[in-house]
Amino acid sequence: MINTVKRVLPETINGQATLPYAGPFAVQPEGRRAGAKVRFNKPHSDKVLPSIERAIDASGLRDGMTISFHHHFRNGDYVLNSVIEAIARRNIKGLTLAPSSLNDVNDAIIPFIEQGIIIAIETSGARGKLGRLMTAGKLAKPVLIRSHGGRARAIECGELHIDVAFIGAPCCDAYGNINGVEGRSACGSLGYAMVDAAYADTVVALTDNLVAHPLQQVSIPQTQVDYIVKLESIGDPKGIASGALRISRDPRELLIAEYATGIIEHSGCFKNGYSLQLGSGGASLAAAKFIKEKMIARGIVASFGIGGITAPFVSMMEEGLIETIFDVQDFDLPSIHSLKTNPRHQEMSASFYANPHNGGPIVNNLDVVILSATEIDTDFNVNVITDSNGVIMGASGGHSDAAAGANLTIVVAPLLRGRLPMILDKVNTVVTPGESVDAVVTERGIAINPRRADLMNNLQGTGLPVMSIEELQHMAYDLTGKPKPIQTSDEVVAVIEYRDGSIIDVVRKPTE
Amino acid sequence: MINTVKRVLPETINGQATLPYAGPFAVQPEGRRAGAKVRFNKPHSDKVLPSIERAIDASGLRDGMTISFHHHFRNGDYVLNSVIEAIARRNIKGLTLAPSSLNDVNDAIIPFIEQGIIIAIETSGARGKLGRLMTAGKLAKPVLIRSHGGRARAIECGELHIDVAFIGAPCCDAYGNINGVEGRSACGSLGYAMVDAAYADTVVALTDNLVAHPLQQVSIPQTQVDYIVKLESIGDPKGIASGALRISRDPRELLIAEYATGIIEHSGCFKNGYSLQLGSGGASLAAAKFIKEKMIARGIVASFGIGGITAPFVSMMEEGLIETIFDVQDFDLPSIHSLKTNPRHQEMSASFYANPHNGGPIVNNLDVVILSATEIDTDFNVNVITDSNGVIMGASGGHSDAAAGANLTIVVAPLLRGRLPMILDKVNTVVTPGESVDAVVTERGIAINPRRADLMNNLQGTGLPVMSIEELQHMAYDLTGKPKPIQTSDEVVAVIEYRDGSIIDVVRKPTE
Repeated sequence: MINTVKRVLPETINGQATLPYAGPFAVQPEGRRAGAKVRFNKPHSDKVLPSIERAIDASGLRDGMTISFHHHFRNGDYVLNSVIEAIARRNIKGLTLAPSSLNDVNDAIIPFIEQGIIIAIETSGARGKLGRLMTAGKLAKPVLIRSHGGRARAIECGELHIDVAFIGAPCCDAYGNINGVEGRSACGSLGYAMVDAAYADTVVALTDNLVAHPLQQVSIPQTQVDYIVKLESIGDPKGIASGALRISRDPRELLIAEYATGIIEHSGCFKNGYSLQLGSGGASLAAAKFIKEKMIARGIVASFGIGGITAPFVSMMEEGLIETIFDVQDFDLPSIHSLKTNPRHQEMSASFYANPHNGGPIVNNLDVVILSATEIDTDFNVNVITDSNGVIMGASGGHSDAAAGANLTIVVAPLLRGRLPMILDKVNTVVTPGESVDAVVTERGIAINPRRADLMNNLQGTGLPVMSIEELQHMAYDLTGKPKPIQTSDEVVAVIEYRDGSIIDVVRKPTE
Repeated sequence: MINTVKRVLPETINGQATLPYAGPFAVQPEGRRAGAKVRFNKPHSDKVLPSIERAIDASGLRDGMTISFHHHFRNGDYVLNSVIEAIARRNIKGLTLAPSSLNDVNDAIIPFIEQGIIIAIETSGARGKLGRLMTAGKLAKPVLIRSHGGRARAIECGELHIDVAFIGAPCCDAYGNINGVEGRSACGSLGYAMVDAAYADTVVALTDNLVAHPLQQVSIPQTQVDYIVKLESIGDPKGIASGALRISRDPRELLIAEYATGIIEHSGCFKNGYSLQLGSGGASLAAAKFIKEKMIARGIVASFGIGGITAPFVSMMEEGLIETIFDVQDFDLPSIHSLKTNPRHQEMSASFYANPHNGGPIVNNLDVVILSATEIDTDFNVNVITDSNGVIMGASGGHSDAAAGANLTIVVAPLLRGRLPMILDKVNTVVTPGESVDAVVTERGIAINPRRADLMNNLQGTGLPVMSIEELQHMAYDLTGKPKPIQTSDEVVAVIEYRDGSIIDVVRKPTE
């Protein structure tokens, strides 16, 4: 079976007929969402339990179930590892782990995978040892990779049924209202966890900051929370959020950022009321600086900014250059502080952000997005999940979501990483289809997707180094030679689900 | 069939076996919530339609379906009547009308009931001509009366399936984000409509204030809204909200308020961190004044206040006497302004407020509530829906919800209204069961529910005029004589559903 990005797929995946990707909006969904469990709780009852083990008992968790976590604590997370350890002590096995993403810190669960406590994983991505373990096919089923919007969709439509959601709660009151902006483990938005809380059969809040009822700022309501466990610490503040993220000084990143800004400026989108998403990567962040200068120079104010939020973005709002921010995740302390205190900084769920099967996520209103890539191919397909050896080391994130929604999707990457060209005939793994990518920017040149003749036209005479994607590719190949394709076996170790539930690619186990 | 408040019920209602009320927490719910319809909307698509008729066409509304509205515009509402008129022009018939409540202004729909356009009604209550029409049995089915929490439950669990929800939107952006705090028709909280928007198959927003995307304050998200219609006006601001509600000067109401405050003061609940709900009725509002004085005198701060919100309540928050407010509906302009500007004033949905079948609505955390009554009986049962002639003229509202949740439920009423005693052997219609009522306060004396020996004890030696409910009743009967019971036929014209879905009473058609 071959899909429309020319990927060969197995006819069935985990015993189910494969739905091949056929275009960003090919799937027309029907039917109804999953219905969350009806709950019941007598007035003035007590939800607080003395330990994770007791919460596991109360939740009814048993062999073969699915558990979820959120990754807002990033590399400072203690919750996921602590809960898996407690589950191991309870001798529950055969679980599917469905976190919104995984970080290096979660390498600690590897022994529990080896013991069969976790046998399957559905996530946005993974890094480090865990990524290598996945790539080696050490799980009973292929790992299922979803975008942030795709995960929200899968939960809401019932494809990903969560039996027990464990939610790290930086601030939790005694009846289960939660926010992420107060306490020593403050992480900011709880956008990914909101979806889990709304749909999981049982919701357990873990907190190191249990306060009197009720909160004065509620992100996840008491109506969705069954049990609360107070822990000494749910995370390492240093790993959760950094100080203000700063603009890169890397000349290559600055040049890429400048070119990306040039495209935006001349795209036709760059006018009062436009909207933007910028990532937290070096070139993306650097672009914020140049875009800001252009906005000031031309007297342009953006209607909204979205995404993972960083200090440069918050400053733009505070300086009146962005009217409002919708926030699904925060990367630094100024962003968390802003979410807590600035009413124009609005928290959003992953569904509001990017689920393609609701009445319209906010990515649908996006004008401009800058996204990074590990590889790009001459069809403009983008890989953000595997490295040049075919090993899982990244995350799907909101990449394909924002790309599908935005009027102008710019993908930035260096032409080379080390001795490896980043523009290939064929990316090792397609995460975002070329159809939803409008421009590729490297430090050596810019390629515009031929589908966007209008954009190509707008860039004429601007002095930007526009060329064909093949020219960019050859420039790289001239420097490094053509890279050898990765040799793989037939074994599928991961499945890349497009945001609409169709399969855009699979990862096969490398043979060397 | 007789239920535990001794009401004779038909064995079946609308062809379904009657579930008799059996205690405030007798129903242990199981299963799953309804699943909202999966939606789909391409990026940058347009949701704005030029007329209500076009929105009706787009919604797929047809004969026999159920439509919903919210009553936050109270007697200033233009939305419900305008939509029904448009439906009549489209010649659609046999609809069930399921608004969160009805007001006098909605008498205008009577011709459309007579024409068979609306054949059934599910609501919190009705007044005026509409109430009389219901009581006369002019609908094809008995009217179904639900509390605010019960309605949220019925929608969320699928008992009340809404085909098309029409939402009056004081402020709506071009992709369907809505709030109730901006614009000439500002009504404040959209708490009732939030539930409709989350579960209806199709959601139509009607607005007289269509603004650029996106809002900086979102109550109902774009993900739930299918179509937007811009109208000249969606309501009469004078009818939507009054100036600041003021404390009564009626000496009888002041005396009742003083007694109610005395009970609170000595109840054992009155301490730092307690919580309260006060209605917008005269004695309730007057109680706010006395409670406030006692709180200041004793240095007590309430953790939260809930309910329909009024200026006196907002002042208490602003003066530091209430830490935070959860708001399902606003009654006056200062409340609307506060919701818009004060982050400690939090909007809540009717489900968060009072749905008994979620993880715990905020009424579950309530210490004190003061509620009014049209009649009370010697079993402490309360009627708020029919008058002394058995005619529907009130609303269930949050009455039974708050009563069930609160530690201390105080019902206030004058001993007599005109020549009619308010304390009877048997109320004409039970809305709130006596089991969840702790004290009855009149201007002539206080009765404590015998189930609350602890409260009786706490009130000893306080000088409050505590007596038995029978003594109160006889005091009234001595003045007026025993009222004649209402004569009714067997015809059931309305069904009073308790918040958990069981049937607590029915209204039979009076024969005179």
